[in-house]
Amino acid sequence: MREAANLEALDRLCSATPVLTGVAAAIDVVPGMTAEMILTSGAPLDWPQYSGGQRMAIIGGAIYEGLANDEADAEAKLASGAITVGSTHDHGCVGSVAGIYTASMPVLVVENRSFGNTAFCNLYEGKSPRRLNYGVYDQEVHDGLKYLEEVIGPVLGDAIDRSGGIELKPMMRRAVHMGDELHSRNTAGTTLLIKELAPHFVAAASGNGERVLETLAFLSENDYFFLRVGMAAAKATADASRGIENSSVVSAMTLSCCEFAVRVSGLGDTWFRGPLPYVEAQLFESYTTDDIEWMGGESMIMETIGLGGFAQAAAFSLQAYQGGSPQAMAAVNESMYEITVGEHTDFAIPYFGYRGTPVGIDIVKVNATGTLPAIDAGLAGRGGGQIGAGILRAPRECFELAQAAFAERYGETT
Amino acid sequence: MREAANLEALDRLCSATPVLTGVAAAIDVVPGMTAEMILTSGAPLDWPQYSGGQRMAIIGGAIYEGLANDEADAEAKLASGAITVGSTHDHGCVGSVAGIYTASMPVLVVENRSFGNTAFCNLYEGKSPRRLNYGVYDQEVHDGLKYLEEVIGPVLGDAIDRSGGIELKPMMRRAVHMGDELHSRNTAGTTLLIKELAPHFVAAASGNGERVLETLAFLSENDYFFLRVGMAAAKATADASRGIENSSVVSAMTLSCCEFAVRVSGLGDTWFRGPLPYVEAQLFESYTTDDIEWMGGESMIMETIGLGGFAQAAAFSLQAYQGGSPQAMAAVNESMYEITVGEHTDFAIPYFGYRGTPVGIDIVKVNATGTLPAIDAGLAGRGGGQIGAGILRAPRECFELAQAAFAERYGETT
Repeated sequence: MREAANLEALDRLCSATPVLTGVAAAIDVVPGMTAEMILTSGAPLDWPQYSGGQRMAIIGGAIYEGLANDEADAEAKLASGAITVGSTHDHGCVGSVAGIYTASMPVLVVENRSFGNTAFCNLYEGKSPRRLNYGVYDQEVHDGLKYLEEVIGPVLGDAIDRSGGIELKPMMRRAVHMGDELHSRNTAGTTLLIKELAPHFVAAASGNGERVLETLAFLSENDYFFLRVGMAAAKATADASRGIENSSVVSAMTLSCCEFAVRVSGLGDTWFRGPLPYVEAQLFESYTTDDIEWMGGESMIMETIGLGGFAQAAAFSLQAYQGGSPQAMAAVNESMYEITVGEHTDFAIPYFGYRGTPVGIDIVKVNATGTLPAIDAGLAGRGGGQIGAGILRAPRECFELAQAAFAERYGETT
Repeated sequence: MREAANLEALDRLCSATPVLTGVAAAIDVVPGMTAEMILTSGAPLDWPQYSGGQRMAIIGGAIYEGLANDEADAEAKLASGAITVGSTHDHGCVGSVAGIYTASMPVLVVENRSFGNTAFCNLYEGKSPRRLNYGVYDQEVHDGLKYLEEVIGPVLGDAIDRSGGIELKPMMRRAVHMGDELHSRNTAGTTLLIKELAPHFVAAASGNGERVLETLAFLSENDYFFLRVGMAAAKATADASRGIENSSVVSAMTLSCCEFAVRVSGLGDTWFRGPLPYVEAQLFESYTTDDIEWMGGESMIMETIGLGGFAQAAAFSLQAYQGGSPQAMAAVNESMYEITVGEHTDFAIPYFGYRGTPVGIDIVKVNATGTLPAIDAGLAGRGGGQIGAGILRAPRECFELAQAAFAERYGETT
């Protein structure tokens, strides 16, 4: 029964057809979003529990949105509930690192046409290590966010409208054949997106040439841009695998400043919380692992659908960024087959002779093997900013708790 | 002395800076080109020696250019010398398969800014297996060539002009990190070229939008497009490595309908001719190796500069097209280090831990090891058209002859 349910989850993960249909202000499209709400990464916490960079990012979001005049004002309003904090995953969104969404921010809209559900992700802020999602808020960050809202979002939205919607599955499949694992490497995805948008930018050029050229330049400079598109596609994909009775497949993973958590298809929307992840990092310049600060992050939605750490052997170029040898990357990738239900029918790894990527993380297999999901991730530093990248391991405690709950609900699992 | 000379050749191969500067009619830019001349692949042959598809392609070129009314007329004029046949390599050009250039055809112009030399390549005809360079000439082929001349060439040339010249080395380096070996796989190269051209297409759109959109669509449909850009860059690169006294490094390899040939840096422009290459092919559908027809080909200029078969381990995706396992591809690539002078300082293979590609084929090492250069190539069939792809091995006889000539000129080589 569990096996059949897990095959159903696998089928839903593989048969999703995410389509990028537009760009809109969060307030206009995100379910349950309000003008006074700030969304952030991680299983829900009470306001006092948010600390460090994630807390700073929420405060920065409040000031950016005009909900507070300064840090003290924001602190007061967040404490009183005048400004509310929501969890991205509960609103069809996923957050990159701190993952701040405010009402006016532009979000990418992705429909899963196979299942009729929709998901969202906000836009990449650019390659400066100082970004709101890495816990930094200052005039430069403010200006960057405004630029996304006033130029990049509208021009991109117009081009997507002209396209009639962009099928993301073929683009993602192809990117995996071009050296992306679509979590920490998105160079091919971004380039393919530019190729797909180019005719619509040409069509839109008349009377709006400067803004189109600026948008093209922004996309061209930011090889990471596609990650947000991929995250929205992955959220739309993973959401369709939720709520299958008897399924022990992970439907979401999330990280806040203080804990990691997973959701399981057959166990509704409960988060099974554990400690912060283990990390094998390659840090920029002089940083050490002591400098890492946890600020949240949900880009592991890519691993949830069989990409990222589950497709490392498609992305040997990544070693320059996150460390490790090609052999180690292949071995990590190979081991992910031990904990998944099956092989992806669309995403395939050339180095493995076009074997489908391992997909559908089964909590029972994780616990039985002790092999923990490998997650490619960017790492934030104390005081804000990105300081490196590496492989995170989802903590076993989450899977043990989840399996206990599973056993309680469905009986023994082995 | 030979060692120093070969290091000089290596340095020139690595330090080239090819820049795509424009598109022009062959007659306007190709050195020595005349209105009545047709260029074709291979070491020069007398007209009666051209046979099969290569002969048909030359005749097709004559008719296309309006130099002859029909096949019989073309035969007569080619026999009489009223229409002359030239060898691409002697005119700064390289040919794909039969490699036909006529006076009016648009060619890509690539300058090697490190050394001041220029090279050319004509345009990809599109993905139909029926193309002039595969020995086919009919109304459809004619129309395709006219379309290149009247739409693709001018729009592309205008965009390149607006760009002020496109640096190709960074694009090629990056493509190798995105799964291309830039001979039989050019998907990343083509996509990166589109990205580079996109802003200039946007700028050119006003008043010319339809033609720009057609050109973008042509580039977007044809993942192979970049091969011609790469070939011109490689020819400009390899040409700068010619004429180094005492160097035993291969400066060109070529194939006609009846023989393979190599040139060696220290031995001037002499071609050392041998039999047709050995082939390990993956053929389309029902074809067998008996169906292969040799029509010429000079895209092995990519191997001459350390790409193609010398970078297979960067392009595991290629196995779907030309066969072989990832392990076999890595082994072939690895073995090319046995016959080369050094490692490329720009083109590096992620799977080999970013080791530079093997570059600078040394005829002495080829003869000493018996390892023959591996060439990724498209294969033509009897009656014309592409029937598959595979690995060619340059025949040992060329290297033996060349080494004998080298010994005669410079004394013993070992």
